[in-house]
Amino acid sequence: MAGVAKIVRLIGSSPESFAKAADAAVQEAAKTIRGISGAHVVTMSAVVENDRITQYRTTVDIAFGVERS
Amino acid sequence: MAGVAKIVRLIGSSPESFAKAADAAVQEAAKTIRGISGAHVVTMSAVVENDRITQYRTTVDIAFGVERS
Amino acid sequence: MAGVAKIVRLIGSSPESFAKAADAAVQEAAKTIRGISGAHVVTMSAVVENDRITQYRTTVDIAFGVERS
Amino acid sequence: MAGVAKIVRLIGSSPESFAKAADAAVQEAAKTIRGISGAHVVTMSAVVENDRITQYRTTVDIAFGVERS
Amino acid sequence: MAGVAKIVRLIGSSPESFAKAADAAVQEAAKTIRGISGAHVVTMSAVVENDRITQYRTTVDIAFGVERS
Amino acid sequence: MAGVAKIVRLIGSSPESFAKAADAAVQEAAKTIRGISGAHVVTMSAVVENDRITQYRTTVDIAFGVERS
Amino acid sequence: MAGVAKIVRLIGSSPESFAKAADAAVQEAAKTIRGISGAHVVTMSAVVENDRITQYRTTVDIAFGVERS
Amino acid sequence: MAGVAKIVRLIGSSPESFAKAADAAVQEAAKTIRGISGAHVVTMSAVVENDRITQYRTTVDIAFGVERS
Amino acid sequence: MAGVAKIVRLIGSSPESFAKAADAAVQEAAKTIRGISGAHVVTMSAVVENDRITQYRTTVDIAFGVERS
Amino acid sequence: MAGVAKIVRLIGSSPESFAKAADAAVQEAAKTIRGISGAHVVTMSAVVENDRITQYRTTVDIAFGVERS
Amino acid sequence: MAGVAKIVRLIGSSPESFAKAADAAVQEAAKTIRGISGAHVVTMSAVVENDRITQYRTTVDIAFGVERS
Amino acid sequence: MAGVAKIVRLIGSSPESFAKAADAAVQEAAKTIRGISGAHVVTMSAVVENDRITQYRTTVDIAFGVERS
Repeated sequence: MAGVAKIVRLIGSSPESFAKAADAAVQEAAKTIRGISGAHVVTMSAVVENDRITQYRTTVDIAFGVERS
Repeated sequence: MAGVAKIVRLIGSSPESFAKAADAAVQEAAKTIRGISGAHVVTMSAVVENDRITQYRTTVDIAFGVERS
Repeated sequence: MAGVAKIVRLIGSSPESFAKAADAAVQEAAKTIRGISGAHVVTMSAVVENDRITQYRTTVDIAFGVERS
Repeated sequence: MAGVAKIVRLIGSSPESFAKAADAAVQEAAKTIRGISGAHVVTMSAVVENDRITQYRTTVDIAFGVERS
Repeated sequence: MAGVAKIVRLIGSSPESFAKAADAAVQEAAKTIRGISGAHVVTMSAVVENDRITQYRTTVDIAFGVERS
Repeated sequence: MAGVAKIVRLIGSSPESFAKAADAAVQEAAKTIRGISGAHVVTMSAVVENDRITQYRTTVDIAFGVERS
Repeated sequence: MAGVAKIVRLIGSSPESFAKAADAAVQEAAKTIRGISGAHVVTMSAVVENDRITQYRTTVDIAFGVERS
Repeated sequence: MAGVAKIVRLIGSSPESFAKAADAAVQEAAKTIRGISGAHVVTMSAVVENDRITQYRTTVDIAFGVERS
Repeated sequence: MAGVAKIVRLIGSSPESFAKAADAAVQEAAKTIRGISGAHVVTMSAVVENDRITQYRTTVDIAFGVERS
Repeated sequence: MAGVAKIVRLIGSSPESFAKAADAAVQEAAKTIRGISGAHVVTMSAVVENDRITQYRTTVDIAFGVERS
Repeated sequence: MAGVAKIVRLIGSSPESFAKAADAAVQEAAKTIRGISGAHVVTMSAVVENDRITQYRTTVDIAFGVERS
Repeated sequence: MAGVAKIVRLIGSSPESFAKAADAAVQEAAKTIRGISGAHVVTMSAVVENDRITQYRTTVDIAFGVERS
């Protein structure tokens, strides 16, 4: 039988790396969503303060399964 | 007066075709959303098992109207 | 000598599949254009009524040869 | 600490301009979402009736902050 | 039965806004085409004279229905 | 330990649908490649003969696992 | 007053270069269209025979002015 | 003889519209650059405060001629 | 019966033009591949030495038929 | 009053990560530019030597405010 | 004389970062390919297990030189 | 230590070919910039006069090294 997944888009941020920023988005999404299976990077950006990047930002499409009854 | 539609992104799947996979996504979305008017294909992919495609997957942006009071 | 092809863009629709929708666009174009050689899918979408897809829509760039005298 | 933003996609419409259509989408989103910080234009289109554009439509990705406890 | 729409691409221009430029394209197209239903923005640009934008330009894909006999 | 997948691009074709064209590409690839896990649609096109689509063509990126010793 | 341009898409070909292929498309379009002002390259491809490129192909969007009365 | 143009990218903003935001970018660029001939819209976004768009932002690629001696 | 083509991506280079760079890629591919039918340009770039372009580079997707037994 | 930002594109590199490569680009830009507010990732690549990535490269669009008198 | 490079696409993965995932792809490719000069990031994604990213995945186009005799 | 390159965008033009147009852009940039290493083609277009292309135009992103002290 056909399964379906839903996608939500979040922007995670981290002072360390794009990878950690993506992970932050996943962890935030996991607070209200069950069954997250993966994430796809949409864009990456950064906040700059005092001539250095202080926040890496990764926009991700997060996929999670939808149970079908 | 200005109307507004909202969009949700889902990945439908079907063992038969990309079209049925898109329809599966729409039917799943319709369980919780009223007023779906259309869908736009974002990407298509497939799961392969034993050297054949066993699931066609269509990622769709599904639009539905928002009533304004 | 260099040959030239022209491209017209149509949106075909079908209650069955994206493939049949593309074919409907080609058949419509063929009513007024001779020498169609191929089509390229630009986008795919769908009309939803009563929580199901009732029309699959395929936008295609249709190429046809131009005779040069 | 890492902050996270969520994104929802809406299509606003307006009889006047693409800018007002984007604003309509933001205002609709603001009815149920707190902390909207910005919007990014995804696509623009228009509805035509009697040979004139009667509705400008702007699809926007609307970002809003998520409080982390 | 499957319906078909055709798409023509025009660049409208206006001294006032991108929205009016899109509308100018639609009105021009309507001189020779019946049944225009909508338009999709492809790109936007501007002509600059004396350090100011004097013409806003909106390239639109204009869709119109094709009657099938 | 980190796993790696390789991707090959093929164009499958089918007289019936884009889905079967994708499957044809997967089956062809499977003749020489083991461990295919999935496919991602890159583009879709069609060959037209006598005013009808005679071949649907789906270009797919096919992923398969690479064993690491 | 607002001017409008129309765009037609053609694929020119040449045994020598992508530039000559684009020019071939323009010259063909000029047989039936007056007032061509420019062309924009959409894609480039090539036909291969006997292990060499025998035809360069340039798909161009050709813009031409529309007189407004 | 071959002419050359240079392109600079700016983000203009306006409380009123995307068009005025593009014009603001052009006017700012014109303070230090001579010979601006046109602008191409790259992206559009908006700043939201108190549930309404307070600034429309248009990122433009601004072209200006380079004199060759 | 359904035919299948495979695609390989190469970067050809030439001191003269993008067209010759594409042809160089095709000729190189032809040393080990039979049945090349066409090429599609993916990107173009150039190497600069002493303030001039010394190598034009064309990245091409080269398609070749796969015999099916 | 409308504010304006300017964008410059740089390619940063780092032996460690894409994030550090983006930061290197920002720090270099900051030597001659004041008021950098953010950066947007355009593309990522890598230099390979002796079968390992020795330099991660991140191309970024760096935005900085322009004071308006 | 014109040089040619070939490109293969791989998906590397790493539990730590997108950078290490890209490097894993390069190291795997290097087992069978000589003369790798660089890699270009195509897309990035992630596998999620138990509400955290457990594998970062970077799809890369890896370029390597082809000797011409 | 991490090196950084800067990118400037120019539109070169030539009555002969897209390659010469790209080279014209590089030569113009070289008048004021030292250390240009390469160029990447962004778009190609053409000016048409009297039904023929009179100027080929190539928009290029030109990269040049930045010395770090």
